Amino acid sequence: MSILVLNCGSSSLKYQLIDMKDEKVLAKGLCERIGEDMSKIIHKVPGKEDYSKEVKFETHTEAVKMVFDLLTDSDKGVVKSIDEIEAIGHRVLHGGTKFTQSTKVDAKVKDAIRECFDLGPLHNPANLMGIEACEKAVPGKPNVAVFDTTFGMSLGAAGYLYGIPYEYYEKYGIRRYGFHGTSHMYVTAEAIKFNKLDKDKAKIIVCHLGNGASISASIGGKCVDTSMGLTPLEGLIMGTRSGDIDPAVIQYIMKKENKTIDEVLDILNKKSGYYGMTNYKIRDHRDLTAAVEAGDENAKITLKAYERRIIKYIGAYIALLNGVDCICFAGGIGENSGYTRQALMNHFSYMGIKLDPEKNSHKGVMEVISTPDSSVIVMDLPTNEELMIARETLRLK
Amino acid sequence: MSILVLNCGSSSLKYQLIDMKDEKVLAKGLCERIGEDMSKIIHKVPGKEDYSKEVKFETHTEAVKMVFDLLTDSDKGVVKSIDEIEAIGHRVLHGGTKFTQSTKVDAKVKDAIRECFDLGPLHNPANLMGIEACEKAVPGKPNVAVFDTTFGMSLGAAGYLYGIPYEYYEKYGIRRYGFHGTSHMYVTAEAIKFNKLDKDKAKIIVCHLGNGASISASIGGKCVDTSMGLTPLEGLIMGTRSGDIDPAVIQYIMKKENKTIDEVLDILNKKSGYYGMTNYKIRDHRDLTAAVEAGDENAKITLKAYERRIIKYIGAYIALLNGVDCICFAGGIGENSGYTRQALMNHFSYMGIKLDPEKNSHKGVMEVISTPDSSVIVMDLPTNEELMIARETLRLK
Repeated sequence: MSILVLNCGSSSLKYQLIDMKDEKVLAKGLCERIGEDMSKIIHKVPGKEDYSKEVKFETHTEAVKMVFDLLTDSDKGVVKSIDEIEAIGHRVLHGGTKFTQSTKVDAKVKDAIRECFDLGPLHNPANLMGIEACEKAVPGKPNVAVFDTTFGMSLGAAGYLYGIPYEYYEKYGIRRYGFHGTSHMYVTAEAIKFNKLDKDKAKIIVCHLGNGASISASIGGKCVDTSMGLTPLEGLIMGTRSGDIDPAVIQYIMKKENKTIDEVLDILNKKSGYYGMTNYKIRDHRDLTAAVEAGDENAKITLKAYERRIIKYIGAYIALLNGVDCICFAGGIGENSGYTRQALMNHFSYMGIKLDPEKNSHKGVMEVISTPDSSVIVMDLPTNEELMIARETLRLK
Repeated sequence: MSILVLNCGSSSLKYQLIDMKDEKVLAKGLCERIGEDMSKIIHKVPGKEDYSKEVKFETHTEAVKMVFDLLTDSDKGVVKSIDEIEAIGHRVLHGGTKFTQSTKVDAKVKDAIRECFDLGPLHNPANLMGIEACEKAVPGKPNVAVFDTTFGMSLGAAGYLYGIPYEYYEKYGIRRYGFHGTSHMYVTAEAIKFNKLDKDKAKIIVCHLGNGASISASIGGKCVDTSMGLTPLEGLIMGTRSGDIDPAVIQYIMKKENKTIDEVLDILNKKSGYYGMTNYKIRDHRDLTAAVEAGDENAKITLKAYERRIIKYIGAYIALLNGVDCICFAGGIGENSGYTRQALMNHFSYMGIKLDPEKNSHKGVMEVISTPDSSVIVMDLPTNEELMIARETLRLK
């Protein structure tokens, strides 16, 4: 039996069909530019040649139909009939405070996703569109919503409230939600399993370091704190996002540059991070480290600032947890950059953390990269959000 | 020989005369409501009765003249003539990036303080007014400016730059400055001296916890990071200040409440922190702990959120320093609340920090409050900004 995982954007649809017997990917693909002139589908089956075709998709429903046609196609397909696909799991960005877990979709759930449009204006409408497309294309097939925010729902009030008037939480839901939850949940669960840690007490820190980046701290798989907050802007310095700043910085930029609040937030989201710090030259972490190696002073400062912020968050979370059993690195940078992992972990030699240089030189391999005598287990643990969504879907369908 | 220390606000002037032989306070006082109708002076000499008088001060210069008259008065005074007062030390809020040290005042220094009006709009104009009042009232007496921001000047670019476009730093000086620097500098120096730590390598964390609150981390007396940034808004949850928030929170509040950026910053500075979190009920930390003891749920969450933030900063700084030799508590809460010190230090038992409950129950006594077998020295170390200013003034006059 297999589960189809969907991640819908406003004009795109990514999919993965996963066989839940062995959790292997049977097929995956992407529909691009839905509703535009040049829409197309790319369909990949391991061991077969990639298939790509320009198709006119007016709606997400048409795209979903095409996905099911391809998956069951006698030549390009991987299953005999739609019946072999048990359910569909949907990535949904924002569950507000309504959802403390993934959930099977019904009319009420759709209403709740709609009520969170305000909190996830770019993603939630597209995610809902994906769900409704499936309802139309394959009626009766169970849909499960897996929210990026549910992992952060266990924070507790002292963790999720900001130091602002309480009425803003009550009236508008202004609080810390946390994002990348599906990734943090997956990595945390895998780390407990892999290291046979105590399911109720394991203290785990996950550094999800990609172009977007966040850190979480959990005890027994329950999130205690996470670096992204009301929006994915807070926390670490990212590719184009500022992360934490003095709130007064916004007022300064607005006045000095004569800009509106929307313009400044746009700058903080899209023109900041390494991109802004390097005078709009570098967006990608690989380019940043290459520039550092080439002796670029500005890139050196930027990389150091990036690392400092992560070091501070890891340290903050070790304190919050009063110690840590396992620190995991995930995401494009976390999984592949031994240089970054070493630079970060150097700051924790005081507490006996020690990396194995040989293992730390590997890229994207799920393994322990600390030495046997390290006081804390450090892991490279490639994330797999699609698999997490599929597992949740199987559990709840 | 003695030093007069002045701290001028827009309509007030606090003073202390310190004998530098034994660093004892000879006299101290306050001029209030300068330029208003009901101005008055309060003058205190240890061992004598307090003196208070309503005097009409039109300007700071008139107030300074009165201070000198009182200090040299045959009855209420403590010195025979103005000659016994060697120099005047001034607290100045903002030195921008111009001043990496305290400095003797000349025309250029005054210009530079004026150039920082924009960065310290409430304090710098008043501080300069105090300097100019002294120049007029006691011409020829050396004036020394001690800036609240110089301690933060050793941060290094990776520490002081925000993750925002570099051009905003170049054009407008938007960077982390840090405040309470005089307090952090004093406590750090005293901790090194008291514990005979290595002057070049000692790793020290100072928690200045008052109604305003900030934390600093230093190596060998040089600040490596500090929690307040461009303004004193960033960092910890304070009496009425929010400290760190997702930058997007500002945009939310502006839109939902139909407020301007200035109104929202005003809320974050004056109606947030415990005051905002408790529905505008509690501003003072003693009232907050009293409410917790009385079982108020909202106060409990607020106190826990307050503590969490400090725990995270201490943990972040231990990581940044890769270990710590001494953690100091200063400021009204830091010096007096054994409850808070214990609640914070509980999170560091993983690394072997242990408080002596008896010593920790003392209030405002300069002493080590950790046990002899604690891995880190923890101190109650009452701050003394006036003495720090006097020492700097003596050094530079």
